[in-house]
Amino acid sequence: MKPSIKNNEVGVFALGGLGEIGKNTYGVQFQDEIIIVDAGIKFPEDDLLGIDYVIPDYSYILQNLNKVKALVITHGHEDHIGGVPYLLKQANIPIYAGPLALALITNKLDEHGLLRDAELHEINEDTVLKFRKTSVSFFRTTHSIPDALGIVIKTPPGNIVCTGDFKFDFTPVGEPANLHRMARIGESGVLCLLSDSTNAEIPEFTKSEMLIGDSIRRIFEKVEGRIIFATFASNISRLQQTTEAALKTGRKIAVFGRSMENSIVNGRRLGYITVPDDAFVDAHELKSLPAEKILILCTGSQGEPMAALSRIANGTHRQISIQPGDTVIFSSSPIPGNTTSVNNVINLLSEAGAEVIHGKINNVHTSGHGGQEEQKLMLRLMKPKFFMPVHGEFRMQKIHTQLAQAVGIPKENCFILENGDVLSLTSETAREAGHFNAGDVYVDGNGVGDIGNIVLRDRRILSEEGLVLAVTTVNYKRKEILAGPDILSRGFIYMRESGELINEGQKLLFHAIREALQDPKCNESLVRDTIIDTLQPFLIEKTERHPMVLPMILEA
Amino acid sequence: MKPSIKNNEVGVFALGGLGEIGKNTYGVQFQDEIIIVDAGIKFPEDDLLGIDYVIPDYSYILQNLNKVKALVITHGHEDHIGGVPYLLKQANIPIYAGPLALALITNKLDEHGLLRDAELHEINEDTVLKFRKTSVSFFRTTHSIPDALGIVIKTPPGNIVCTGDFKFDFTPVGEPANLHRMARIGESGVLCLLSDSTNAEIPEFTKSEMLIGDSIRRIFEKVEGRIIFATFASNISRLQQTTEAALKTGRKIAVFGRSMENSIVNGRRLGYITVPDDAFVDAHELKSLPAEKILILCTGSQGEPMAALSRIANGTHRQISIQPGDTVIFSSSPIPGNTTSVNNVINLLSEAGAEVIHGKINNVHTSGHGGQEEQKLMLRLMKPKFFMPVHGEFRMQKIHTQLAQAVGIPKENCFILENGDVLSLTSETAREAGHFNAGDVYVDGNGVGDIGNIVLRDRRILSEEGLVLAVTTVNYKRKEILAGPDILSRGFIYMRESGELINEGQKLLFHAIREALQDPKCNESLVRDTIIDTLQPFLIEKTERHPMVLPMILEA
Repeated sequence: MKPSIKNNEVGVFALGGLGEIGKNTYGVQFQDEIIIVDAGIKFPEDDLLGIDYVIPDYSYILQNLNKVKALVITHGHEDHIGGVPYLLKQANIPIYAGPLALALITNKLDEHGLLRDAELHEINEDTVLKFRKTSVSFFRTTHSIPDALGIVIKTPPGNIVCTGDFKFDFTPVGEPANLHRMARIGESGVLCLLSDSTNAEIPEFTKSEMLIGDSIRRIFEKVEGRIIFATFASNISRLQQTTEAALKTGRKIAVFGRSMENSIVNGRRLGYITVPDDAFVDAHELKSLPAEKILILCTGSQGEPMAALSRIANGTHRQISIQPGDTVIFSSSPIPGNTTSVNNVINLLSEAGAEVIHGKINNVHTSGHGGQEEQKLMLRLMKPKFFMPVHGEFRMQKIHTQLAQAVGIPKENCFILENGDVLSLTSETAREAGHFNAGDVYVDGNGVGDIGNIVLRDRRILSEEGLVLAVTTVNYKRKEILAGPDILSRGFIYMRESGELINEGQKLLFHAIREALQDPKCNESLVRDTIIDTLQPFLIEKTERHPMVLPMILEA
Repeated sequence: MKPSIKNNEVGVFALGGLGEIGKNTYGVQFQDEIIIVDAGIKFPEDDLLGIDYVIPDYSYILQNLNKVKALVITHGHEDHIGGVPYLLKQANIPIYAGPLALALITNKLDEHGLLRDAELHEINEDTVLKFRKTSVSFFRTTHSIPDALGIVIKTPPGNIVCTGDFKFDFTPVGEPANLHRMARIGESGVLCLLSDSTNAEIPEFTKSEMLIGDSIRRIFEKVEGRIIFATFASNISRLQQTTEAALKTGRKIAVFGRSMENSIVNGRRLGYITVPDDAFVDAHELKSLPAEKILILCTGSQGEPMAALSRIANGTHRQISIQPGDTVIFSSSPIPGNTTSVNNVINLLSEAGAEVIHGKINNVHTSGHGGQEEQKLMLRLMKPKFFMPVHGEFRMQKIHTQLAQAVGIPKENCFILENGDVLSLTSETAREAGHFNAGDVYVDGNGVGDIGNIVLRDRRILSEEGLVLAVTTVNYKRKEILAGPDILSRGFIYMRESGELINEGQKLLFHAIREALQDPKCNESLVRDTIIDTLQPFLIEKTERHPMVLPMILEA
């Protein structure tokens, strides 16, 4: 059903972020005004072979472009800003973001050649954006990146609040969350709350960054050799704590990995990372320093095969190799799907003689998202009339609604929606008001949306069973095979050792094609079918494998 | 260095199981007598595209076959018995195993048509196998499958003990571990201990099955709808607890999934599962039962796409679909690498309206392997002179040696070996005595060892970038293109929507090949190179993707 938002209603919807972790892109629409909140990407799951990342289908925004007033950004993580260049390529929407997010977006737009025309505005917690019928204001939250903002969209039917990603860290790095402003927002009335569901399965209150800073400093004091420290480049608060610990314990900092270098540059320029210039050294200066004076800060905490730490671990890094006495710290926890890669890197480092510190028990990492008690605190502060859990897979959204009910929001006022669903609200009522297309769009290389399910299905078959090619040149009129049939395979069996199988297959094909050509109606399609019907059962019988059989017939 | 074990030494080695979880295959050699312990498979990691499983290179056994006296089995899990048919195909070694393991091996050998010639012997804890110079005896341990045995190999230089997989469960399902026998073995002197390292990273003492049985029963009493219960089919102790809980709470049991059905049949036949016949119902009888009288026992606790639970979750199971009020219990924890699949199944079940119980906090699963305290208890009981951590990745082996040192075994007496390394021991000394080849052998379909790194590399490229084929028929003498060039792709871009790119590529190729044919020395190799050098940069420029370019040239 096409969405229909009545004149007295405010519509709330998502292009991405519901039923998934990633590509957060939310919208609030009152009459002819639409505010977009965030434009993120999602990193593909394993079954999306070769896909770089996933963005939402932006059709709904493009169809309603004349109504769109602003894209406001909660914070600078990829799952909230990574889609900006792809959206801006199609629609030049004014962007409002805090200093760090704006710096990161600027880099991105520059890379895509979109900077010249972009309309960028820096905001802070006190900014108010006024449009004809709606207005947008902000409140400071805490997360694993500085400048995290929650967003209040004021509309005639009522206020819509998007928390963005948050935890309640009362001793954070940098500014604490603005609890008093949140309380005032709650008191002045919230019609609908869109709140971060990431850690809805976690009963604990997320540990403060302060505890992590303390453990890092204690480790830095105790360790006598080099320290190699890997974390998310985007976790600028962690970088700040780590570089300060290095400064306090007299270690010089060498930075490896492009995204880590960028983060350090951005963080220092914006004042989030405050250690002085001479705290940093170049790779070639490391040799002249004693081991206990060295901190190597690098990418690769998720076991990414091309990142600095993975190359250090497998011995292919040009400048750094593990030496006895090294201590490697993983200040991170593996994203599901990366566990095996991370474990492999830990094994390699450990075999090379490094001590490896990782995991919960060492207190070297904490989540950027609040657990159940923090989600309830947000619900208590905002006390919304309606509630819509966002930023989570279904099971997290479901638990989040149970938490909402536990703090007194009626079950019928909680809405677990899917991307593309529109929730329409008056000051008193809520209804599901239709659906627009909001599917996944795959980005691969410089192609956006040109990889579909057929290509992915082919990649899956190729990856598991490989491919067998059979090529021949024929002349239909003369009923002759002019060249071939030749067989070639990739990813199926090692051809040099399988001459007999190939020969036998070629003979079978030759006879089958010759017979097919006798048919007066013989055409390319018949030869194709003949090749497949001959070769496929032969290969299955001989190998119990089901490679993709690809006939190719040339005519001469 | 080729292994050399002196006449007064006993050699200890592994064909699989060191530096990895899986394909446990250990050997103890004194003069002309070799005892093999276990013959397991390993399930492939994600990068082994399309591979079914991995077995060890058995060359060392085959080269020394005249010395091999026995294959003794610790227990019936795949990573300890899955390799038996592959080994037996090459070498008919007498097998000694407990009742359950023997039943499972018998099934396997029957499937492979190897049963007739196999020499199978059932053993129990009190069996002693006497050979000319060595003898083998056993001790009962506890694990997640009944009949788990530790193995003592008595040799003139001293006793070698292999623990097999174990935990210390003092309130297990079935028989407890034989602590007193273990104590006597320790008192009589252990030269070298090979002990299970799986949970060396876990500081806790593994929970007893009794606690899990209690939680399962409490859940069965409380739930009012159907219960769908998924666990490892091989965890017969869990199946026993679950079927008993069903019996006590008046639920009839329906079993889904082939391996689960086999386990129930084997478990009942051997007396491990004791519920009566009329406790079980067929699928078609479920309709006539009220929801609160139903237990559905099924495979799929690891999110395996073809297993019963996954098909129930995605709505493709022929007999069962989720109905409101259903409770699904995952009595398992996801193996690293399966987390995403398991989460997806949980989301689907949850969206379909089921309550899902999973994870540590619900006490519905415990590990079959002991944590650090249990590993230390084993070390204390056996008090070996030398120690060799087995059954674990490097980081687990390393922590296990640290535990050994903590209970008083000198560091220089601990050996972290790799597959193929030989440790040679006299009653007083230990030395590394060379290495034999013990690489991975891949099993894919009915091929063993015919998939190598080249095929896997091809599968990887095909899976991430796809393939572009360029075919042409030429006549070198007449310097003519007789047919083509035609371009075909799979897994690269969707061809129907990329006509322009394909046409442009074909034109480029046509001109390049025509030019190449003018070269008097033109041959197939030159045309190949011409095609690759023309098409590859063109495609990279247009798409930023790097598909495999496969030229195929026919001559006519």
